[in-house]
Amino acid sequence: MKKSKEVTIYDIASALNVSPSTVSRALKKHKSIGKETIKKVEKKATQMGYRPNRVAANLRTQKTNTIGVIVPRVDRPFISTLISGIESEAKAKGYHVIFTQSHDKIKLEKENAKLLFNYRVDGIIVSLAMETNNYDHFLPFKDKDIPLVFVDRVTESLDTDLVVIDNTQSAQIATQHLIDQGCKRIAHLAGAQHRNVYLNRRKGYEKALLENGFIVEKKRIIELKQLSAEEGYQSAKTLLKQNPRPDGIFTANDTTAVSVIQCAKELGIKIPEELAVVGFNNDPISTIIDPALSTINHPAREMGEIAARQLLSDKKDSIIESSNIIKLKTELIQRASSTRIEK
Amino acid sequence: MKKSKEVTIYDIASALNVSPSTVSRALKKHKSIGKETIKKVEKKATQMGYRPNRVAANLRTQKTNTIGVIVPRVDRPFISTLISGIESEAKAKGYHVIFTQSHDKIKLEKENAKLLFNYRVDGIIVSLAMETNNYDHFLPFKDKDIPLVFVDRVTESLDTDLVVIDNTQSAQIATQHLIDQGCKRIAHLAGAQHRNVYLNRRKGYEKALLENGFIVEKKRIIELKQLSAEEGYQSAKTLLKQNPRPDGIFTANDTTAVSVIQCAKELGIKIPEELAVVGFNNDPISTIIDPALSTINHPAREMGEIAARQLLSDKKDSIIESSNIIKLKTELIQRASSTRIEK
Repeated sequence: MKKSKEVTIYDIASALNVSPSTVSRALKKHKSIGKETIKKVEKKATQMGYRPNRVAANLRTQKTNTIGVIVPRVDRPFISTLISGIESEAKAKGYHVIFTQSHDKIKLEKENAKLLFNYRVDGIIVSLAMETNNYDHFLPFKDKDIPLVFVDRVTESLDTDLVVIDNTQSAQIATQHLIDQGCKRIAHLAGAQHRNVYLNRRKGYEKALLENGFIVEKKRIIELKQLSAEEGYQSAKTLLKQNPRPDGIFTANDTTAVSVIQCAKELGIKIPEELAVVGFNNDPISTIIDPALSTINHPAREMGEIAARQLLSDKKDSIIESSNIIKLKTELIQRASSTRIEK
Repeated sequence: MKKSKEVTIYDIASALNVSPSTVSRALKKHKSIGKETIKKVEKKATQMGYRPNRVAANLRTQKTNTIGVIVPRVDRPFISTLISGIESEAKAKGYHVIFTQSHDKIKLEKENAKLLFNYRVDGIIVSLAMETNNYDHFLPFKDKDIPLVFVDRVTESLDTDLVVIDNTQSAQIATQHLIDQGCKRIAHLAGAQHRNVYLNRRKGYEKALLENGFIVEKKRIIELKQLSAEEGYQSAKTLLKQNPRPDGIFTANDTTAVSVIQCAKELGIKIPEELAVVGFNNDPISTIIDPALSTINHPAREMGEIAARQLLSDKKDSIIESSNIIKLKTELIQRASSTRIEK
């Protein structure tokens, strides 16, 4: 790859036969320069492909007007909706947004953090990779007082703002719903237990069982690494071969819930009569699968908007000593996959 | 938002009580500096949160090792898979990837192009916004010989490399399949006709009809702005109320094909017996809808990989005078939504 030499204000000055300082001031729309000259300089600068030296400019203004975002992967409806929320709020405040994916790997998350740090973004919003269990790669942002907000998959270890939902309560509501529908043997497909969201969803599931006098049985809980469709399908097979068979399954995401429904259909198990299913996220697939999937509505867009708002808000320095945790409400969306008793 | 002052090599020099030029050379691992000193300087630089001035560095090396990407929106499986392909190829070659969304708006596409230009990315990969009908915002890249590759939604007007599928042929195959299944009145849900992909899909549909002695009827073609689920549902309603009713529908994406199936089911129209449906993209929803959707498999990941490879390849300057068009193969994936005659 080849690049031509950068155009400088000296080149523009020479092309227009004016002084470099005139060009410099014109590009900043300085009062001392006439409108005509400003127009002429701007036109020539565009023609010649001039790019302001952002870093030099940033050293003066300390601003790039850009927010950096690191997410696990964008191919999940929850994440792409979250991103839309971040972007709409950021745009409204005059900020640009650039995105990077960690692909759920800590190595890539580290690289992306460094890249965004060196690009001097004005703030960074992060939803942690499934793997991440060390957070030192975010310390440079902390050290430089560059705002950092974690969203959904978070850590409390860095004393930053967090935007989350109440995962425990949401999972408890989902599980209670299955109990209310008459389920006696409720299984759970869980996510990686070192990630706050999946740990808390499991806790909520167990809490609901215990509060209703059920016992928590290890064989009814399967922990999945990625919560992928394939993993969901294999786990469903394992669970549905148990004797006695679970009559309800609460899954930590919709992808695996859909796999459960597909597996049950193949095995001739009737949904919801013989097996009631509740997922998590309210992804678009939840209304495409037949029967439609009951699930927890995850306010992804709102989370993104609030994360960006939090990031861009003016804060009184050093007053907030500890993490500011913003918890958003969820709701159970009851559909055919769990409706044994008509409302 | 507040940011602390940038750490300079002077600060590091003063903290270590060495000269700034020692720090500068140590950070570049210059031969004249001992290993111990290099280690010491690097450690202190990290501690103090020093960031190399990327732009100054870029002016010397002319490289940021970053690829910029502009896509319409990441919440489409085709796009997120495309991005994964770009990313995997770029990472393998030591490049980082930052991406931005145009939300199918030319205004945002222009802003993103400017942002990435000013960030001095080493190359840019673009899939055009639905709205875009003027391409001047990419001229700065052309003028500076910054590699630019269009992928999927492309324009030939800038003489750059293009990575596409054969949309006309793919649509012709899809439509021919409906004819082979015995459909006599085949409708088409089309996308915006100024975008190459949707224009060519319509052309392929018409070609198949004409080559089989059918006539092309305007009332059987509906052009949708965004090809959204809602638009698909409304158009399906319109088409399925026609008398005589279409007995086959080829849609320009899977989202609208799923809407067609859902609408037909609500109206009690049997699929595929009374209505055969073929979509485009092979999105995950195509296997979740019941009956499963026949569709065209779109090699999104491969397209992304090839686009990145093309972008990062060393080219003999000015030998390639015109666009280098790379066309990838697609295939029809036949599923229950169109299978009247068993294979």
